[in-house]
Amino acid sequence: MSSLFLRTLRDDPVDAEVPSHRLLVRAGYVRRVAPGIYSWLPLGKKVLENVTRVIREEMDRMGGQEVLFPALLPRDYYEATGRWTEYGEALFRLKDRKGADYLLGPTHEEMFADMVRGELSSYKDFPVTLYQIQTKYRDEARPRAGILRGREFVMKDSYSFDLDDDGLKRSYEQHRETYIRTFERLGIDYRICFATSGAMGGSASEEFLAPAETGADAFVACRSCGYAANAEAVITPVPPAGPAEHPPLRVLDTPDTPTIQTLVDFVNEHHGLGVTAADTLKNIVVKVRTPGSDKAEVLVIGVPGDREVDFKRLEAAVAPGTPEIFEAADFERHPGLVRGYIGPQVLKDLGITYLVDPRVVTGTSWVTGANEPGRHAANVVAGRDFTPDGTIEAAEIRAGDACPQCGSPLSIDRGIEIGHIFQLGRKYSDVAELDALGPDGKPIRITMGSYGIGVSRAVAVIAEQRHDELGLVWPREIAPADVHIVGTGKDDQIEVALSLAQELAARGVRVLVDDRPGVSPGVKFKDAELLGMPTILVIGRGLGQGVAELRDRASGERQDIPIAEAVDRVAALAS
Amino acid sequence: MSSLFLRTLRDDPVDAEVPSHRLLVRAGYVRRVAPGIYSWLPLGKKVLENVTRVIREEMDRMGGQEVLFPALLPRDYYEATGRWTEYGEALFRLKDRKGADYLLGPTHEEMFADMVRGELSSYKDFPVTLYQIQTKYRDEARPRAGILRGREFVMKDSYSFDLDDDGLKRSYEQHRETYIRTFERLGIDYRICFATSGAMGGSASEEFLAPAETGADAFVACRSCGYAANAEAVITPVPPAGPAEHPPLRVLDTPDTPTIQTLVDFVNEHHGLGVTAADTLKNIVVKVRTPGSDKAEVLVIGVPGDREVDFKRLEAAVAPGTPEIFEAADFERHPGLVRGYIGPQVLKDLGITYLVDPRVVTGTSWVTGANEPGRHAANVVAGRDFTPDGTIEAAEIRAGDACPQCGSPLSIDRGIEIGHIFQLGRKYSDVAELDALGPDGKPIRITMGSYGIGVSRAVAVIAEQRHDELGLVWPREIAPADVHIVGTGKDDQIEVALSLAQELAARGVRVLVDDRPGVSPGVKFKDAELLGMPTILVIGRGLGQGVAELRDRASGERQDIPIAEAVDRVAALAS
Repeated sequence: MSSLFLRTLRDDPVDAEVPSHRLLVRAGYVRRVAPGIYSWLPLGKKVLENVTRVIREEMDRMGGQEVLFPALLPRDYYEATGRWTEYGEALFRLKDRKGADYLLGPTHEEMFADMVRGELSSYKDFPVTLYQIQTKYRDEARPRAGILRGREFVMKDSYSFDLDDDGLKRSYEQHRETYIRTFERLGIDYRICFATSGAMGGSASEEFLAPAETGADAFVACRSCGYAANAEAVITPVPPAGPAEHPPLRVLDTPDTPTIQTLVDFVNEHHGLGVTAADTLKNIVVKVRTPGSDKAEVLVIGVPGDREVDFKRLEAAVAPGTPEIFEAADFERHPGLVRGYIGPQVLKDLGITYLVDPRVVTGTSWVTGANEPGRHAANVVAGRDFTPDGTIEAAEIRAGDACPQCGSPLSIDRGIEIGHIFQLGRKYSDVAELDALGPDGKPIRITMGSYGIGVSRAVAVIAEQRHDELGLVWPREIAPADVHIVGTGKDDQIEVALSLAQELAARGVRVLVDDRPGVSPGVKFKDAELLGMPTILVIGRGLGQGVAELRDRASGERQDIPIAEAVDRVAALAS
Repeated sequence: MSSLFLRTLRDDPVDAEVPSHRLLVRAGYVRRVAPGIYSWLPLGKKVLENVTRVIREEMDRMGGQEVLFPALLPRDYYEATGRWTEYGEALFRLKDRKGADYLLGPTHEEMFADMVRGELSSYKDFPVTLYQIQTKYRDEARPRAGILRGREFVMKDSYSFDLDDDGLKRSYEQHRETYIRTFERLGIDYRICFATSGAMGGSASEEFLAPAETGADAFVACRSCGYAANAEAVITPVPPAGPAEHPPLRVLDTPDTPTIQTLVDFVNEHHGLGVTAADTLKNIVVKVRTPGSDKAEVLVIGVPGDREVDFKRLEAAVAPGTPEIFEAADFERHPGLVRGYIGPQVLKDLGITYLVDPRVVTGTSWVTGANEPGRHAANVVAGRDFTPDGTIEAAEIRAGDACPQCGSPLSIDRGIEIGHIFQLGRKYSDVAELDALGPDGKPIRITMGSYGIGVSRAVAVIAEQRHDELGLVWPREIAPADVHIVGTGKDDQIEVALSLAQELAARGVRVLVDDRPGVSPGVKFKDAELLGMPTILVIGRGLGQGVAELRDRASGERQDIPIAEAVDRVAALAS
């Protein structure tokens, strides 16, 4: 500690919103250079290296082969897949001295597909799994929470290449098991959540989320059966069909009912109905733009009036299309859509696609718009008065909704994405024309999986989950050192601390020793607690009696031990 | 080998100019992505990792503390030192989504100085040495030779921070010793060359150059005393002063003498002189632009007529100024300078600075321009007819020139820069206002050293120095594996090879085993030689007699050994 490049801070950094950020800065592990861009100081670098090692060991154990791509990539590869444009402002773009376009790689699907195409040709060469641990770049609109969501960050990304879908499923399952082992070793508490494919295109996909109050991602969890999913991936249980017979449709005057609640109150009071918001059918108009097309299709979405449309679920549901707001000018071009009074009764005649929440099953009866200003309709029955073109998972998920697996009430938790496994399919191999020559001499289009772990993010997540009010509490395998030896006092304490440190180091124990002269015991203890090594060994006033104090950072447990046994005791803990 | 992601190539890549490039591509270690930008395949990644490990171990042993800076850096830091502009086109610049300026770090002096300023404050905190191993970016005008001179490359850069110049010298010496140990371990043949400071500003500096015919850097070496230096750093031995008495200055008509040789021939034939080119004094006009100034100073440089001005030496000599060509328009603005006939006799009156080669000492007599069209002057004596304002090391160095240390003839060799150590001084600490509070409460300006090793380049240099006509010949510590076991034949050879591989791996030996079925022994041997593991163990036809063949890749030596001893023999070599 007397020569370590370290300054611990008494105060929290002003921009720190979350505990990991606060503590990693206070304990001198990282420093901010620019928004979302951080430097790693010596202790932080050791933690990052330890996390990297664990991930590498588990990837190697799985049979992954490590490669390393550049971060600076020519535009062509990303132009071919459309991602040069699709990434939008999140992509760092630049030109070289000759004016050629480059980007800083946010993810490397294109490069891996191209590399495999260059090296392998026979079906006998497959399957293969390649990975890299590398610095990646995304120009986040709102970099936040220190290294949790940075613009320059370290990622492990891997890709599997298989001859068929069964092979892909096996590679996916191998990665899933490897990720489970990896996160266990890293000491991270996590949930595996069903995920949608997002912007990537493809089929099965799961996210590893670390539950954290401060997490940027909401996820849905069932305490009863263990089901967990991204909000985007939650499937709404379909209720049974409604009754066959219903009273006839009634058109009602409903002046001054701008909101669902005013509508419900009005029809109950003035038209003698007894409905709730859940009995109304709210119809939202959006435009959906298909990639590569300059036209946007009009889409009306019907959801029960007690729920909002969740834009992220909507986005996932219409992907690869992009939903856009239906604006005043759009309404002018579509006079059949009466703003505020849209009902599905006329949509078929207008030739507009109508998708409904899965709860809107045949035989259900709704209060909805009458397609005239100031009027709504009651007893509007699905299958009688309108027939949707299909269903869409766009309504918000709420705590208490039924679990799609077991029907128990769902809760909504927050988490941090630490891993993502993804059956990518043939999107990138189609573009790269990545084929293997089959045993019959015919080409086999390769199918890919894509798998990521946020390496630098994992450091923050461990800090987020493993700390107390005093500071960081590293799991042993990840800690910068096994033991923090504190020498306090005015006699031989520091010399003894240093000599124990030497003995322990000779036995392969990773030691940090506080040998600072003239620093008070209080400051030394506070630093030891802040820095968070799993074991603290205090050589203090007990030295005269041949006694040291052994502390467990996580439990806070303290015990006096004979100094003569200290090396053996600590070495046993570290092994 | 049956599952390794590897394809060796029969043919050299078309763009490969140097052996390391040719072999690293053919052996499947690296692949080109864009000019000067390469991917590392599994075997290459292992070599890169091994080189990194050696460098890290030696830096740690020296007491260096590892940190990690971002590669994506905000403009401000580099604006403050002027390098945002000074770097010119070699800097990759980009903007983020908010329009803020960023760069990809070519070197990190600014960042390190700023980090130390942020963390340390007392004189007791110093000295400290920090290092990082990181990807760096330079937009080279002519990226060449594969990974030898890339635009994205891995570097170890370190910086020492000391309280005074003596401390800096100690830190410098420590680095020098560490670099010697590092390059020895890497198996690189190198020379330590005196270097100028180049664009960095500062005092003492040495380069570690790996001699290579294909090297981009010329250096001067003395076979007799071991002196070695960059051409820019060579000091010209000063001859003794000439005689005090000389005949008077004569102006001569010299029509049609556009070159030194025609001038010499003409004055010898028509004016009865007996001079050589070395007796003429050639005067070159340049403009020198000072950083931050918009005016350029006119400078005339006098060199013996048998030597050219070496532009790189000139650049180094006028740094931090930049020399520029004196163009026709400039001559028009300076009518006193008669193009082609400039003599130093008039320069004092014109108020133009005149610097001469160190050979132009007082009492030497020259044939030079007479400052009139078509006329030269003879018996122009230094100290009598002109007095230079000083000397300048700008004349070319030639093989056979006298060694400045021992006077023996110098040779000029080519090499590849693999390391650079540099007493930087206070350039960056002045800008960062990096001070330590001294024991007397007064601030002490910190003095810095800067030290670099080209990590990815070292891989290429090892390949460049360690190969033969068959392929790569890795030193053991750097090789992707200790032993390449080749199983050839139709019986149990491959099974035996695999089981030996397993036994060796269990003993900690790093093994590559060629278990490919249906591949001919010839192809397998060729691949083993191309890939370059230090030991090759062949399980072939001798298996029936219990015999394996042990080959040393470097010497080519082969011997039959009992298979029963194979594991022990190979393990002994690897330990």
